[in-house]
Amino acid sequence: MTGGRFELGAVDLQYGGHLPAAFLSYRTFGELNAKKDNAVLFPTWCTGTTKDLDWIIGPGRALDPACYFIIGVDMFGNGMSSSPSNTSPPFDRSRFPRVSILDNAKMERRLVREKFGIEKLKLVIGRSMGAQVAFQWGSYFPDEVERILPMSGSARTAQHNYVHLACLKLALTSDPEWRNGEYRTNPIGSLRRFRLNVDAWGLSQAWYRQRRHLAMGYKTTQDYVDRDVPIALGDVNDLLAQIATWEVADISDNDRFEKDFPAALRAITPKAMVMPSRTDLYFPPEDSEIEVASMPNAELRVIPSIWGHRGAAPGSDPADIEFFDRAIADLLAR
Amino acid sequence: MTGGRFELGAVDLQYGGHLPAAFLSYRTFGELNAKKDNAVLFPTWCTGTTKDLDWIIGPGRALDPACYFIIGVDMFGNGMSSSPSNTSPPFDRSRFPRVSILDNAKMERRLVREKFGIEKLKLVIGRSMGAQVAFQWGSYFPDEVERILPMSGSARTAQHNYVHLACLKLALTSDPEWRNGEYRTNPIGSLRRFRLNVDAWGLSQAWYRQRRHLAMGYKTTQDYVDRDVPIALGDVNDLLAQIATWEVADISDNDRFEKDFPAALRAITPKAMVMPSRTDLYFPPEDSEIEVASMPNAELRVIPSIWGHRGAAPGSDPADIEFFDRAIADLLAR
Repeated sequence: MTGGRFELGAVDLQYGGHLPAAFLSYRTFGELNAKKDNAVLFPTWCTGTTKDLDWIIGPGRALDPACYFIIGVDMFGNGMSSSPSNTSPPFDRSRFPRVSILDNAKMERRLVREKFGIEKLKLVIGRSMGAQVAFQWGSYFPDEVERILPMSGSARTAQHNYVHLACLKLALTSDPEWRNGEYRTNPIGSLRRFRLNVDAWGLSQAWYRQRRHLAMGYKTTQDYVDRDVPIALGDVNDLLAQIATWEVADISDNDRFEKDFPAALRAITPKAMVMPSRTDLYFPPEDSEIEVASMPNAELRVIPSIWGHRGAAPGSDPADIEFFDRAIADLLAR
Repeated sequence: MTGGRFELGAVDLQYGGHLPAAFLSYRTFGELNAKKDNAVLFPTWCTGTTKDLDWIIGPGRALDPACYFIIGVDMFGNGMSSSPSNTSPPFDRSRFPRVSILDNAKMERRLVREKFGIEKLKLVIGRSMGAQVAFQWGSYFPDEVERILPMSGSARTAQHNYVHLACLKLALTSDPEWRNGEYRTNPIGSLRRFRLNVDAWGLSQAWYRQRRHLAMGYKTTQDYVDRDVPIALGDVNDLLAQIATWEVADISDNDRFEKDFPAALRAITPKAMVMPSRTDLYFPPEDSEIEVASMPNAELRVIPSIWGHRGAAPGSDPADIEFFDRAIADLLAR
């Protein structure tokens, strides 16, 4: 595993923003073969980074570095690639521009081509916001990717999900110390409200019914609610930047499809495996069913998880992760 | 329809609190017959009052005032019965004690017996927190109620629901103007966060997918998110008092059942119709299934609604409300 930083230089963004010196952070696993046809792109998810990929990449797994050259790439705003917390004025903090899912895909494409000379990817795989990037690749660059595997995500942010994200934004900006993003230390009240929202939405009713939160070592549900907010949760401006990407995600909102969502789905000719989690409250399987119905080459495979949005995610049920791993292998074998 | 106020005097509460001059607000519909056997008790729900009952009570409806004597009763904390906003110091504002579901049921029992001389109710019906009261009546006073109809509620607040309520509490206390309950005017930032949380949780993914929020007259989802918070949403201290009741609701948490939840369910010998909404994110049908399995005389009838927790609630789909009305008629005919 090696990491790197790819300088993009000045970039103009889809929704009118500009970054004078943007960059992508990435990590690679395995080696690119001579024909350059074993590359897998793995964009991260909201609050995730390329440091978190070993939950599904490794020897003996479907994504085995002995077979594939896996490029994990950090999403804009996650604190590793260009983000509010690592960008110089005048585009730092709350002045960081909105970066779209398509912006992410286009910059990743530059990384893949300019840095590694890869013209066609074997697979783009991602979960949550990373799944939105996988859909975007399949729709916008269908001739440059053989397969996509969007897991626990959608091709377009649902209306319900948008309202939920508005809750998260109100939570993140709630602490008086927030000061419109000019805080000196991370506003803990904001993070506490954010984390509790994510606790409630990110897991399922069934997960709590089985008292999995108590199995984490808490005596009471109130103890679980009151537990310390980890600093690792992230920088508030960075979290808001990631939500700014997520909330407007729509593979059809661009010059090519002009908001014709079914047309953007029909354009996804690569082989696709769409994997919602059965109990996901952000991305319920119904949305995936609707999307798959318009995709010409897609299988819907629902993860039978009680972990909600965290089904088959890092740290969740090993059986779900194994289910996910088998699905990746099945798709790669096609 | 006539209204009234029933003075309870000094009351000691289940969790150790005390109110020196408590009262219940109520409204009645129809007339009590000579045998006093046509009385229906209808406790309200969180944010609801007895002013909101005509959505399901009226001529030609199952709950027809020509046939039944319907006693709508305001829950403690709703601003009509004893609440933080209408109680004198030292028990006003955030000093208002926690009132349990059992406290509500016991005080309602006093109203029913002392004011009206009723020894047995034909039905206790309620939605949401009112459903929790109906379960409580059925379990604690099974010989004093012939039927219960808990709709969109549970006999015990689920773990997931508890975490969600913790989110609401953090939202309600988020505005700097909150000042630990000593605000002069309602803290609007708190109410805005509360309302948006309730928007996201109280309706379903399917409801938003069908763009019902835009059908309310908003051009965009952001307009819907940004709409004004109505003052009618309630007093923040009152909302917190209602959540204090809801979060610990458990028909088995009392001297009689000592937290033996299945035993408390088995004690519900009255005829019961348990009616979750198919898409309710607070009270998913799975919880009702589990409860009904231990109840000796209960039917589970799921409301086929996309309105989530607001399925068959005031202002929701007329077809769902008709479904609810038929179910009430069916139960009353048994």
